Amino acid sequence: MKRPLILVTNDDSVEARGFHHLIECVKDMGDVIGIAPALPQSGQSGALSVNVPLRVVEDKRYSTPQVPVYKVNGTPVDCVKLGLDAVVDRRPSLVLAGVNHGSNSAVNVIYSGTMGAVIEGCLVGIPSVGFSLLSHSADADFSETTPLVREIVSAVLGKGLPAGVCLNVNFPARCQIEGLKVTRGARGHWTEEYKEYTDPSGKPFYLLTGHFQNDEPLADDTDEYWLKRNWATVVPVGVDMTSTGDIPAIEKLLIP
Amino acid sequence: MKRPLILVTNDDSVEARGFHHLIECVKDMGDVIGIAPALPQSGQSGALSVNVPLRVVEDKRYSTPQVPVYKVNGTPVDCVKLGLDAVVDRRPSLVLAGVNHGSNSAVNVIYSGTMGAVIEGCLVGIPSVGFSLLSHSADADFSETTPLVREIVSAVLGKGLPAGVCLNVNFPARCQIEGLKVTRGARGHWTEEYKEYTDPSGKPFYLLTGHFQNDEPLADDTDEYWLKRNWATVVPVGVDMTSTGDIPAIEKLLIP
Repeated sequence: MKRPLILVTNDDSVEARGFHHLIECVKDMGDVIGIAPALPQSGQSGALSVNVPLRVVEDKRYSTPQVPVYKVNGTPVDCVKLGLDAVVDRRPSLVLAGVNHGSNSAVNVIYSGTMGAVIEGCLVGIPSVGFSLLSHSADADFSETTPLVREIVSAVLGKGLPAGVCLNVNFPARCQIEGLKVTRGARGHWTEEYKEYTDPSGKPFYLLTGHFQNDEPLADDTDEYWLKRNWATVVPVGVDMTSTGDIPAIEKLLIP
Repeated sequence: MKRPLILVTNDDSVEARGFHHLIECVKDMGDVIGIAPALPQSGQSGALSVNVPLRVVEDKRYSTPQVPVYKVNGTPVDCVKLGLDAVVDRRPSLVLAGVNHGSNSAVNVIYSGTMGAVIEGCLVGIPSVGFSLLSHSADADFSETTPLVREIVSAVLGKGLPAGVCLNVNFPARCQIEGLKVTRGARGHWTEEYKEYTDPSGKPFYLLTGHFQNDEPLADDTDEYWLKRNWATVVPVGVDMTSTGDIPAIEKLLIP
């Protein structure tokens, strides 16, 4: 019997340490193929490249006989779509993305390129999991995440996930993670988003910055609460965005 | 009393006919500001520009004393974020996006730049609506959408929307729209996604194509069903992607 095929991708590029860490974590658990963006794609959400000629090229710097690694001149979603369409010889049992350099907790799932790739895997019916570490530090220590990544991958490989649901896993950056909490994503938004600069000709330009602001008391059923207490969090993310419970209220509003 | 401020954006660029149609539809309903990407941004989802100097410039081709129009070298989400942070002098009562050239029904809400902008407005607590016409034709006729756009905008301006919920409105491209149906988005995914080409040096490249495939029978509570029957559809979209109902099952799976 063939081993399960595991497609690993990322949004920090094919050069990212977190990408290679994730491959190392799972390379004995199946046949692993790595396919990641050639350039960093943080904040690319579910973006896909329209009218852009995409190329998928084996990256000899990282490819091994055991784990071929490819790069794509596109987004994380492009990597998953093109990986499935043009690279793999059979349907993967799992799509994994990460380990992201930085948090994808709370509302960040909306903007995250890591979770964009995971949502894409889920949409085509493949159990999919995204992993993120709450550190942007260049020398961030990913080693502590290894046993939890392996536990989660083993469980999902063995039993799958509910249809239409993928997982958003975040790890605290400190040592000795307390354990795993399955929670909902905290509600919030970003504020004070741009720093203004003046260019040499006197014209303004802006760079994204911002602070995350909770829109609710930090309740103990949210990822933000448990991450602050040094737990790893797992949020089940549903890819069907219809809010069916609101249909009657919207009917009443629009159709008098 | 000041009139309500309405921020209008788009993903087909500041030059798109659908953008100017939407401004025309609502310009007597409040103080309107247009802010759209300088270049087309179809399929940009919730993508935002990280580490990219953003500029917001009044577009003299389209700006009038009544409706100032700006362009941004970024995505639809950048337009909303930067519009709120650097352009408006008070909080808008409404964020509108569209009218998109092409469908954003069903799963397309995940990839849509139009809906990316709408979700961004909703996340910061502003009632937000996206409009799309099921035609990519250069001479598509937007005129039929005017009364329904105005009805929806009037209702949402008057009564707001539930917290965390925005609207995804799609119009059929044929004449004499039957009416408005509030429905859920049909479940499906894209297949046969890429056409392969060979470049002059013999190397392959790929362009996105694909067919939408329903993952369920076309039930009469879905947008796809009613759009085929020449109705306009309104899908309430929830921006909190946690699938809370699946938390117990995921706990059981991961924490034995």
